[in-house]
Amino acid sequence: MFPYKTSIKFDRKCNQALYLQLANQIIQLIKNRILTPNTKLPGSRTLAQQLNVHRKTVVACYEELSLQGWVESISKKGTFVHQNLPILHQQKIKGYQVNNLNINTGFSFYKNNISSKSTLNKKENFIYLNDGISDVRLTPIDEIARTYRRICAKKNIFEHLSYGSTYGNDTLRKVIVNYLNTTRGLHITKKNVLITRGSQMGIWLSSQLLLKKEDVIVVGNTNYKSADTTFLNQQANLKRVLVDKDGIVTSEIENLCKQQQIKAVYITSHHHHPTTVTLSAKRRIHLLNLSKKYHFAIIEDDYDYDFNYNHAPILPLASHDTNGNVIYIGSVCKTVAPVFRVGYLIASEYFVDQAAKLRGFVDRQGDALLELTFADFIKSGDLDRHIRKVMKIYRQRRDLFCKLLKKELNDVFQFEIPKGGMAVWIKLNSNYSWEIITEVAKKNKLEIGNWQRYDNANLKHNYIRIGFATYNENEIHELINRFKKTFYEIKV
Amino acid sequence: MFPYKTSIKFDRKCNQALYLQLANQIIQLIKNRILTPNTKLPGSRTLAQQLNVHRKTVVACYEELSLQGWVESISKKGTFVHQNLPILHQQKIKGYQVNNLNINTGFSFYKNNISSKSTLNKKENFIYLNDGISDVRLTPIDEIARTYRRICAKKNIFEHLSYGSTYGNDTLRKVIVNYLNTTRGLHITKKNVLITRGSQMGIWLSSQLLLKKEDVIVVGNTNYKSADTTFLNQQANLKRVLVDKDGIVTSEIENLCKQQQIKAVYITSHHHHPTTVTLSAKRRIHLLNLSKKYHFAIIEDDYDYDFNYNHAPILPLASHDTNGNVIYIGSVCKTVAPVFRVGYLIASEYFVDQAAKLRGFVDRQGDALLELTFADFIKSGDLDRHIRKVMKIYRQRRDLFCKLLKKELNDVFQFEIPKGGMAVWIKLNSNYSWEIITEVAKKNKLEIGNWQRYDNANLKHNYIRIGFATYNENEIHELINRFKKTFYEIKV
Repeated sequence: MFPYKTSIKFDRKCNQALYLQLANQIIQLIKNRILTPNTKLPGSRTLAQQLNVHRKTVVACYEELSLQGWVESISKKGTFVHQNLPILHQQKIKGYQVNNLNINTGFSFYKNNISSKSTLNKKENFIYLNDGISDVRLTPIDEIARTYRRICAKKNIFEHLSYGSTYGNDTLRKVIVNYLNTTRGLHITKKNVLITRGSQMGIWLSSQLLLKKEDVIVVGNTNYKSADTTFLNQQANLKRVLVDKDGIVTSEIENLCKQQQIKAVYITSHHHHPTTVTLSAKRRIHLLNLSKKYHFAIIEDDYDYDFNYNHAPILPLASHDTNGNVIYIGSVCKTVAPVFRVGYLIASEYFVDQAAKLRGFVDRQGDALLELTFADFIKSGDLDRHIRKVMKIYRQRRDLFCKLLKKELNDVFQFEIPKGGMAVWIKLNSNYSWEIITEVAKKNKLEIGNWQRYDNANLKHNYIRIGFATYNENEIHELINRFKKTFYEIKV
Repeated sequence: MFPYKTSIKFDRKCNQALYLQLANQIIQLIKNRILTPNTKLPGSRTLAQQLNVHRKTVVACYEELSLQGWVESISKKGTFVHQNLPILHQQKIKGYQVNNLNINTGFSFYKNNISSKSTLNKKENFIYLNDGISDVRLTPIDEIARTYRRICAKKNIFEHLSYGSTYGNDTLRKVIVNYLNTTRGLHITKKNVLITRGSQMGIWLSSQLLLKKEDVIVVGNTNYKSADTTFLNQQANLKRVLVDKDGIVTSEIENLCKQQQIKAVYITSHHHHPTTVTLSAKRRIHLLNLSKKYHFAIIEDDYDYDFNYNHAPILPLASHDTNGNVIYIGSVCKTVAPVFRVGYLIASEYFVDQAAKLRGFVDRQGDALLELTFADFIKSGDLDRHIRKVMKIYRQRRDLFCKLLKKELNDVFQFEIPKGGMAVWIKLNSNYSWEIITEVAKKNKLEIGNWQRYDNANLKHNYIRIGFATYNENEIHELINRFKKTFYEIKV
């Protein structure tokens, strides 16, 4: 008889019931052809004795095996390994556990060479540059978590726990309508609103609906990297036009329109990403007129509308759009904290319907509880209060950061003080290269990261974008010091 | 002079600062060519008097307009509408407010005629049939909300508030590894785990990576509608094979493999959707062997693994996969409540890497706070306790539902008592048609919904799937009564 006693091991600390542990091990033995078809299994009493378990455990195990079709119980004869089981062809892997999932697949599939976002494993005491994200230490996390719990405790909460609308929670949609109409001068109704998981989803949905292989989308010659890769992933034909101190040069877009059908223009009108410049009123109107004349979509990514230090925010193009040409994208991520994946896509009703349908395929729906939490957060004025609070802090940080840059690194960096946003667009003196600086900075625990992403068109402009909002006063001093040290070491 | 006094209105209850309200109205006047280029605006003192506001308000407004580029201030001469502003071409819409966003877009885009999920506007006192979803009234919402808040109060929470990994939260990935290895007999490491927004995202990501136009995917001749539409949306070629009492007929799949390259097979092995049958052990092994021989992927959607009333759950195919052929998809949605969009995709490391990259384009990352909440919920044993609790209730509901079906509707319905899951597969006596029943039932406040979705292949099998888990004892009685009444009315 097969040596069950030595082959079967129980883990008494494990949550799994003994009969299941036994059954799974017998299945392994059958699968590995150690117990072959038609093998008679020992009687329940015998096996129980051998394994030192209760007889009921073995009986339950055999019942389970029988139900799963691994064994057959023949009355008065006993329990047998099922005779019709085919052999499971297992790959033999040298040096690996047989059951480890492979690193490679056993099938072919469509790989993608365009890289999307990645995450760094952060090292301690390092300062990491970013391209302008909020300081998560300022997140009103207590307020939000308290609101979340309060909402979950509401009597009518159950109606929000089942499947919901692919358009997003209705209450949040209404709050967003009111919020955007008041703050951004939009003139929308609920039907123009799709709640997304942040701006990236808005950009992705738009690109799916607008772009197929070789379709033309116009972007700045410097442009937000994630938008570029999203369009490239769609195999679109990216046409890059100049960005100057007044934003994207719309006369160049007009020239393109005269030559070929363009499907869309992607803009970050409020503060161009990465250069931080604002699109002038003249060009705004020009672009809107072009979109009407040439029937293209304007994807307006208003990623940091809320942060303006010198003047009130400029109304988005969407507020002037009467032809249904603008797809307006925003989120609360940048304003509150990236972890809260709540954003919106505003467009004509017909486009919103199609975008909602598409998002239904992807992740079905958003998180109604989080959406209700943010509806409350916006409606109560908490969001506005939060913005006022952090804006003051970010302005101070911008001022300090720019002052120190000017004072300590004037010979290596050129920049304009940004009027808003959370980042500075900084040009490196042409005597230096970011490649070398990145290497040396790393030794000084300053991680510059992928500086090439600011030059997708390979213009060799020597600029990178550095966020200032994440660092407090001490950290800004330390950041500047590490830069100074880096340049000192390079000069020597 | 232009009648500012009658044209400009302030809303003193509005949050918006007066100077901004004024600025936005003047912008409208400029955009609508009511104030034309070179028009001189009144002096700040004059306008302030006319509008009965403080002079500072007007000064701030003019500064704002100047910054935004709408007006030009010429020293000692005054403030003028900018001369170089192009005309904004506005569409004239009869009967509509000029600034309303259109229903139609001003550009063309790629529409999609395959419908994804939709949401009903539920009417009061109606009973809605579903295809097997959990009763959200049993959701441990207090526990989850409390856990969420506790996690948000942790000292180290800030590190989770910024941008995170596209693979999902690391803690949850580890918990899922342990949970699936223990409960499902998998043999995976963290690298095999992508956290998704629920099963639908897993199906969608898989279909994106596996299927391009005309690629063959095999599904049951009855199949989960959302999977079908996701594959169709990818323009795949769906080959349907028979499903019998032992699940999908694998010999038919073998025949297909001999004729053409198939890319993938989609299965709901545990309880086939919609028929509720379990895939036999023999076919499981056969299918795995086929996948190895013919190099196709098996998408195993284990949507209701946890609910078994007659025996322990059967281990998924993924637990026997040593060749990297299985993509294993599951979620906590069905088990806890649909609103919690947390699921997983388990596959070879290489496939998971590509799926993570793709999801990076779509929504960048998951909700780390919710993921941490569920990591805690699983690790603490709360999930298992919840499952044990609701399983008992669902078993009672299944028993009552099937007993009443048998007793009261035996002449019109045929069905087998399901061994697990949350739904019964019910055949209507061929004297009747669902079309008529749906209409009459509606009058009895019983909404059957889209019964055609259970017959994607148009087999005219006359079956639909009815979930029983959402209804308590009284509701089950009422549901059966409304069916009885419906049939009575049809017979008469």
